[in-house]
Amino acid sequence: MGGDHAPHEIVAGAVHAVRERGLSVVLVGSPRVVYEALADHDATKEVPIVRAEEALAMDEGALASLRRPRSSIAIACHLVRRGDASAVVSAGSTAGIVATGRLRLKAQQGVLRPAIAVALPTLPTPTLLLDAGANAEAKPEMLVQFAHLGAAYAELAYGIEAPAVGLLTIGSEAEKGNKLVKRAHELLQASPGLSFAGNVEGHDLLTGKVNVITTDGFTGNVALKTMEGAVRYAFSELRETISDSRLARLGAAMQRSRLRELRRRLDAEAYGGAVLLGLNGTVVIAHGSSKAPAISAACQLAADLSADGIVAGTGDRVAATHRSHRLW
Amino acid sequence: MGGDHAPHEIVAGAVHAVRERGLSVVLVGSPRVVYEALADHDATKEVPIVRAEEALAMDEGALASLRRPRSSIAIACHLVRRGDASAVVSAGSTAGIVATGRLRLKAQQGVLRPAIAVALPTLPTPTLLLDAGANAEAKPEMLVQFAHLGAAYAELAYGIEAPAVGLLTIGSEAEKGNKLVKRAHELLQASPGLSFAGNVEGHDLLTGKVNVITTDGFTGNVALKTMEGAVRYAFSELRETISDSRLARLGAAMQRSRLRELRRRLDAEAYGGAVLLGLNGTVVIAHGSSKAPAISAACQLAADLSADGIVAGTGDRVAATHRSHRLW
Repeated sequence: MGGDHAPHEIVAGAVHAVRERGLSVVLVGSPRVVYEALADHDATKEVPIVRAEEALAMDEGALASLRRPRSSIAIACHLVRRGDASAVVSAGSTAGIVATGRLRLKAQQGVLRPAIAVALPTLPTPTLLLDAGANAEAKPEMLVQFAHLGAAYAELAYGIEAPAVGLLTIGSEAEKGNKLVKRAHELLQASPGLSFAGNVEGHDLLTGKVNVITTDGFTGNVALKTMEGAVRYAFSELRETISDSRLARLGAAMQRSRLRELRRRLDAEAYGGAVLLGLNGTVVIAHGSSKAPAISAACQLAADLSADGIVAGTGDRVAATHRSHRLW
Repeated sequence: MGGDHAPHEIVAGAVHAVRERGLSVVLVGSPRVVYEALADHDATKEVPIVRAEEALAMDEGALASLRRPRSSIAIACHLVRRGDASAVVSAGSTAGIVATGRLRLKAQQGVLRPAIAVALPTLPTPTLLLDAGANAEAKPEMLVQFAHLGAAYAELAYGIEAPAVGLLTIGSEAEKGNKLVKRAHELLQASPGLSFAGNVEGHDLLTGKVNVITTDGFTGNVALKTMEGAVRYAFSELRETISDSRLARLGAAMQRSRLRELRRRLDAEAYGGAVLLGLNGTVVIAHGSSKAPAISAACQLAADLSADGIVAGTGDRVAATHRSHRLW
């Protein structure tokens, strides 16, 4: 029920995941609405529906998750908690997903706050940015936990040994930044079991300089959306430049297929969704603007993470690191 | 003396500004070092040097401006204060320039903190982002002042009537964001003489949706550097894609000149420098990585701003708006 293009693109993505990827998908929402969307694909017998009386609107925030215990996202989390589903995928209100996840699935042992981890398209392995928007207000201790969650995820999901962690701020020297990051810098330096590589800046997000970037959810979300907007801008400017003359158009025709392929890699949809780390359950948050291919990719990511026990393993590893160093 | 490529690129830029733009430039720094750099251009008789015993290193912060009263940036500010120069241009440490400017030139009447305004390359007129890094820690009242400073500058410098002002945060609804922006949102809505257009997000920086974007210096700096990094990334990825096959290389050759032109427009250097608003004097902060063309462009911007009385007029207008509404 969530996302700018719900229900049709969401349902189309689910049908694609079932038919083309062989995944097992359950749709949670208004039976009438979802059934009609499934009928458009002759898929009413292929994808089961679980009834949810209500849904969170895209502009509803964290409080709505308390007001609506029967929302589609709440029911979906319940399925995971009961073991009837392995993971949740949603393109709905991020604040609503995070709040509902915390309420229904609970945070992993010792985790102060779950964080949204986004995989940025660096090579050879993605750079993880977290928190990308779950906690607009954060304390220094949370930034240290985000660093540990991200490092554990990078190890388990990408096989990176001792991932390098950077702290997002406005200068490379230790004393650069606001109070939050200055204190977080001290704590990160003193944190055992972490390869802290010091400060990173906005232009380091896509250079692959570090494997994990820790930041508060406000800064992380602004940076992520700025990056998306800048890439979109560069491509639209480029399109305009290319079609500016006949000679250029000729060259553009040759490259169109390559450009499309590149843009897809850079595009928000290609991230395949953000992962909510720190909860007792796998939750993948798809971009609000997701269309069917992005939803299908998010379902694949959710299935892979769940099959490999990545989110649970991330929590276990963070808890073990902290226990062994008696930090809690 | 400041900047990653000082003194040679800085001096080369100054010589270009004098010879090609007909500007009158004074170089402030170590006479021996600057003289030698001028000699490389046979320009020792064209560009006067004012002696400064010391210089702030690029990694020196705000406190160094107190420790070094005879730094090149301090002497340059003095020249403006005494009326011996119309404006300062520096590619040195941003924190050092801001702190020295506040100390030597003082804030305009009623201004809590000067802010760095950067003109983003939107069309038909630039979008001003401020604060882009002067104040890592800000109070809600400062964000309102940045909005007024930016709006007055947009009117005077670009002739935009009643510029639309947006508040940078992580969602379009009023309640989205951290404590700082939520309070700033309330104050901006109640602020007379301001066309407040509500919240904007990271992807709105380059869409031209608003004329002015107000934010704290930490978020603004992260967003700006993220934007620069993303544009650079998109172009380098594109270059790689293009040279990937012979057919594509043919197309690329045709477009190379257009691509170069576009990249220049998007590139950090093309901004021609950021302006420090709220001080009794015109200060243009060039990018630390500036080479000669960027320094020459920054000199032009400084000369134009000074000739048109833009920075002084911005302060006067903000003071008048506030006086008439008895806010101070």
